[in-house]
Amino acid sequence: MSRDLSSDELTPVAGGGLLDRRLLLKSGVVFATAAAAGATTASAEPAPSTSVVDPASPPWMHATGKPFTGYGTPSPFERRVVRNIAGNRDLAGNGVSWTPLENLEGIITPSGLHFERHHNGAPEIDPAQHRLLIHGLVKQPLSFTVENLLRYPMRSQICFIECGGNSNAGWHEEPIQRPLGSFHGLVSCSEWTGIPLAVLLDQAAPDPKATWVIAEGADAAAMNVSLPLSKLMDDAILALYQNGERIRPENGYPLRLVLPGWEGVTNVKWLRRLELASEPAMTRNETAKYTELMPSGHARQFTFVMEAKSLITSPSWGQKMRGPNIYEIKGLAWSGRGRIAKVEVTADGGASWAAAQLQEPILPRCFTRFRMPWSWSGAPAILKSRATDETGNVQPERDVLVKERGRDGYFHYNGILSWSVEDDGTIRHVYA
Amino acid sequence: MSRDLSSDELTPVAGGGLLDRRLLLKSGVVFATAAAAGATTASAEPAPSTSVVDPASPPWMHATGKPFTGYGTPSPFERRVVRNIAGNRDLAGNGVSWTPLENLEGIITPSGLHFERHHNGAPEIDPAQHRLLIHGLVKQPLSFTVENLLRYPMRSQICFIECGGNSNAGWHEEPIQRPLGSFHGLVSCSEWTGIPLAVLLDQAAPDPKATWVIAEGADAAAMNVSLPLSKLMDDAILALYQNGERIRPENGYPLRLVLPGWEGVTNVKWLRRLELASEPAMTRNETAKYTELMPSGHARQFTFVMEAKSLITSPSWGQKMRGPNIYEIKGLAWSGRGRIAKVEVTADGGASWAAAQLQEPILPRCFTRFRMPWSWSGAPAILKSRATDETGNVQPERDVLVKERGRDGYFHYNGILSWSVEDDGTIRHVYA
Repeated sequence: MSRDLSSDELTPVAGGGLLDRRLLLKSGVVFATAAAAGATTASAEPAPSTSVVDPASPPWMHATGKPFTGYGTPSPFERRVVRNIAGNRDLAGNGVSWTPLENLEGIITPSGLHFERHHNGAPEIDPAQHRLLIHGLVKQPLSFTVENLLRYPMRSQICFIECGGNSNAGWHEEPIQRPLGSFHGLVSCSEWTGIPLAVLLDQAAPDPKATWVIAEGADAAAMNVSLPLSKLMDDAILALYQNGERIRPENGYPLRLVLPGWEGVTNVKWLRRLELASEPAMTRNETAKYTELMPSGHARQFTFVMEAKSLITSPSWGQKMRGPNIYEIKGLAWSGRGRIAKVEVTADGGASWAAAQLQEPILPRCFTRFRMPWSWSGAPAILKSRATDETGNVQPERDVLVKERGRDGYFHYNGILSWSVEDDGTIRHVYA
Repeated sequence: MSRDLSSDELTPVAGGGLLDRRLLLKSGVVFATAAAAGATTASAEPAPSTSVVDPASPPWMHATGKPFTGYGTPSPFERRVVRNIAGNRDLAGNGVSWTPLENLEGIITPSGLHFERHHNGAPEIDPAQHRLLIHGLVKQPLSFTVENLLRYPMRSQICFIECGGNSNAGWHEEPIQRPLGSFHGLVSCSEWTGIPLAVLLDQAAPDPKATWVIAEGADAAAMNVSLPLSKLMDDAILALYQNGERIRPENGYPLRLVLPGWEGVTNVKWLRRLELASEPAMTRNETAKYTELMPSGHARQFTFVMEAKSLITSPSWGQKMRGPNIYEIKGLAWSGRGRIAKVEVTADGGASWAAAQLQEPILPRCFTRFRMPWSWSGAPAILKSRATDETGNVQPERDVLVKERGRDGYFHYNGILSWSVEDDGTIRHVYA
């Protein structure tokens, strides 16, 4: 370690031992140094033998394996990697389930682990009976079958969907201690494919007086919300596919409205009806919910866009450091305003920051994976990440956000998340 | 239709009614025209009513839906979208399963539908007992636990994996009549995340005489193959994650070697051993298999890179046209040499070609989705697509490929695929 750390290339670029992100892109030499250190502490064993046949061949090499399956599932050894369900005691179908972000890598969320928010359960819809109705202030009301829709031109977009209520534990007086995904995991990222909604709206010929659209789902809550027609004519997708296959039931099968960058509730699942109107309907989801009471006593309403945000997924609560060593700090960043331009990381509680490596591809309104090499000395450290998007929107420190928005906001929490690394290697959630 | 087709914007850009790909990017007007035509022929019903409440609300709006699940699965109405299994009668664990490409959209293949090639079944490996051994011509043989490996720096790449034997029905005398995925579906595309293999190889310190690596899996066939060390030091990934989650058992849990752009057999699943050597081991998979007997009587060997290729996924065999109308021709293209630069489509059997729209993101060694608007007159037509990659590598016509490679090649078939659209709207596979 000492030899390694004395070399120029391992000179910290910021306090607390943050190293140059370019180390992650360098040829083997430096990587090997980092890796060797990692492996040593992780007690990689010298090989028991260099003979061609490992003397200790495992049991599964001595019997035929499992047969082929039509549709695969995860390993039984990963059975604990599931969505964390927080349901309503009095109504099981009302609640949320959280994506276990701390267990995932890359930018794609597997469809089986995409977060859920249901008001009255997930309907099991027969696509042959489902219809999409476009009506209200249009010249030609239309009703579409799923079979019709499957023949329209399509486009795909890899983008995140985040619930407006994600991370709201951040408003609590005390920092909550639980796995990252269980309080920040109402956000997921998929490749959505479907019909540019403008195609269908144009066909119905909107009346010039139409400026809003009431979107309604076919669930037993008839979940609905009012949306500006302009967004639906811009980049909205009537999605039929998620991550290559038809959408899963809990994500809106057979049809979901996808509004890239806008809060989850606007991405209406099981979409059955788009009613064009001259004003919003003032439904529950834009009055009692998804509005934010400000310190002034006034409430913010129609706050659709999800702001720049980032999370360090590793190290994070529940994980443990294995002693002084070189580690990779990694996490996710996203913004509803466009591409992520920069993610800065600090290991000294914000005294100094350094830019993390952003993994390609960097796509608009999509998860961006960031990585940062870190030489941890074993001393207590405070880790944070701060996202900046291409529009200049910067993720705020928690105290700044709370001062601006008060404690009754509940929705749209995008404050910087802080992890305290204790000298024994445990990780705690802190406000710092 | 006539009014539409007489407008400048719907003037065909090539024979057989191919339209300008820019129509797919234009504002609603033209799209709506195309869509309206589609919807009309598809008999979109005028809305039964414009009242706020659809009088015929479906049964699933009158009862609480399904409860939350820890891990989601596809809709029961999609139960027929599965991998098509072709196993060995005498050894069930030996065979392949095909990705149903004709049922999928976008570029991501869901992990549950990723193609499989097993020699003796899929082992169910306990990650706590699994080891990766790096030995042979190295200064420091090493054995890694999965727990060690999870702490190394990682990177992700969205890339395809294609079996060297994919599409080999193309060598048949007569064109095979079956769903696209059942003869071209030994190719899939995922986001793979893991450790740059150079990091681990550097740590073991290869002997200067080491130029080859024998990679072995922990399945009951001890599947192995020889690989040039240079590729493993270049862009090889020791993958632990697929599409965000830990790799599925049938795709190599807990460890898979991923060599972007190289034939499937080199992407060794359940990786347990990398033995560095000064020459290839001449295993079954580089002698009896994965070599191609040429007309000269000599055989090609170590043909690792998968060449430029494309497939029209819709319309394709088993689908049916719904009469004269405007359709979207769509498909997938990929190349082991880099990015796809161009996909050309013909609707008149190759007399004239036009460039299709390539959907962003266009990534190296990754599926690229292409789309082309087509006005079908109802007359018989021959559809083909031709991929060109950024290195200038062009997908060959079948007769050119057969002339060059003979009929005994079996592996690495990338000839142009032709669909015949009959006047009754049925689709047949033809050699044309």
